[in-house]
Amino acid sequence: MNLILIHPHEPDSAGLVRLSGERAEHIRHVLKASSGKTLRIGLLNGPKGCGTVESVSGKEVVLQCAFEEKIPACPAVDLLLAMPRPKVMKRLWAQLAALGVGRIILANAEKVERYYFDSHVLEPDFYNERLIEGLQQAGDTLLPEVRIIKELKPFLEDDLNSIFPMSGKKLLADPSGEQNVFQALESAEAAKILMAVGPEGGWTPYELELFAAHGFKIFHAGPRILRTDTACIALLSMVAEIQRREI
Amino acid sequence: MNLILIHPHEPDSAGLVRLSGERAEHIRHVLKASSGKTLRIGLLNGPKGCGTVESVSGKEVVLQCAFEEKIPACPAVDLLLAMPRPKVMKRLWAQLAALGVGRIILANAEKVERYYFDSHVLEPDFYNERLIEGLQQAGDTLLPEVRIIKELKPFLEDDLNSIFPMSGKKLLADPSGEQNVFQALESAEAAKILMAVGPEGGWTPYELELFAAHGFKIFHAGPRILRTDTACIALLSMVAEIQRREI
Repeated sequence: MNLILIHPHEPDSAGLVRLSGERAEHIRHVLKASSGKTLRIGLLNGPKGCGTVESVSGKEVVLQCAFEEKIPACPAVDLLLAMPRPKVMKRLWAQLAALGVGRIILANAEKVERYYFDSHVLEPDFYNERLIEGLQQAGDTLLPEVRIIKELKPFLEDDLNSIFPMSGKKLLADPSGEQNVFQALESAEAAKILMAVGPEGGWTPYELELFAAHGFKIFHAGPRILRTDTACIALLSMVAEIQRREI
Repeated sequence: MNLILIHPHEPDSAGLVRLSGERAEHIRHVLKASSGKTLRIGLLNGPKGCGTVESVSGKEVVLQCAFEEKIPACPAVDLLLAMPRPKVMKRLWAQLAALGVGRIILANAEKVERYYFDSHVLEPDFYNERLIEGLQQAGDTLLPEVRIIKELKPFLEDDLNSIFPMSGKKLLADPSGEQNVFQALESAEAAKILMAVGPEGGWTPYELELFAAHGFKIFHAGPRILRTDTACIALLSMVAEIQRREI
């Protein structure tokens, strides 16, 4: 935990927050903080700030919260991911939040098994806990928005334009692409990016055509075939680093 | 498995190999291959090639192997990683091999717990199996070389120069760095790169000075604090992509 996230309903009118559970444990046993010590905190979906320890007991930790005015900028990258095996997705939530994504769209694809969508890893209580874990690791406050799409085609045809700006850049990594990620991102500068990552076994030719018809630029991400989770981390971090350089 | 790895001692003098266990299972149940089908194969630490299925039975799968002449190029990146928690390292082996690293150096550091080095995840039988899993995923044949370094200082002082070329570039990601990864890699072109990744909590100022004194260039990898495994994947994939662009 490199930042302790406070939920908006938690501080009282005087800015005091009483923590129990995992966060209190962390303050007591990892940070070993006592009265007077200041800790890095953040308001979920709000600004970062500073928490001064008022008291520490076996029952609770009381912090006096002071938040900055500025809310961190939303990550420039959204992710459209063919739903991976639940075991892989379980591990991926925290890592995606740590890397920083504005939106996580989990979509069906021909090579995705239908039963993946019945998994408990897609329940908001389950994934929000892991997303928050990733934010606290990375020192961020902005919870990615999660969408679950069981029909890819109508989503691309009808819904994508309403949630992703026309000025943004849509990318898809596939061995059939001719450009590399630098060429594909050229002149994207600070624009919003949507990165599509396929299932194990890849998108089908029909799906690739569908994406291309909806403005996705297909690029190749090198000769190695990566597992979904490794590929997501690799692609998101590359794009973030290129974006940071452009700014 | 995007490539089936054959060990050098397995083919007989006629180039026939008899597979049982996991690889035979994969050929039978995932690839559903029957006689005459050709499969992508590779010789461990040797060339890739093509395996023609001669026969499939419940007991074994027999392949006729034909290997190319050319051995794949060794990855341009070596990794020096402060030994992570065994649970994290367990998951990381296959991912590192899939991303492609020439050498994995697991080193001690002030913020590494001594008992991490007693873990079974550092036993060659354990990690080689996972490294091979990663190679078979990525379609590569070159097994990373693994070194375990319990004393960082004498390694940097006495041993590093003998295993890492003087012409190579040594990089270390730390928030204290002033350049970004593009600036740090500038003009590295196809040179060999050694990437150092610190423990949870980072290298100490003393360790940072030690690395700097031994030619490591310190760069910053952005404002987010990543878990060791996420950071390794992010940094290795960024460097590989930049290297690919230069070639």
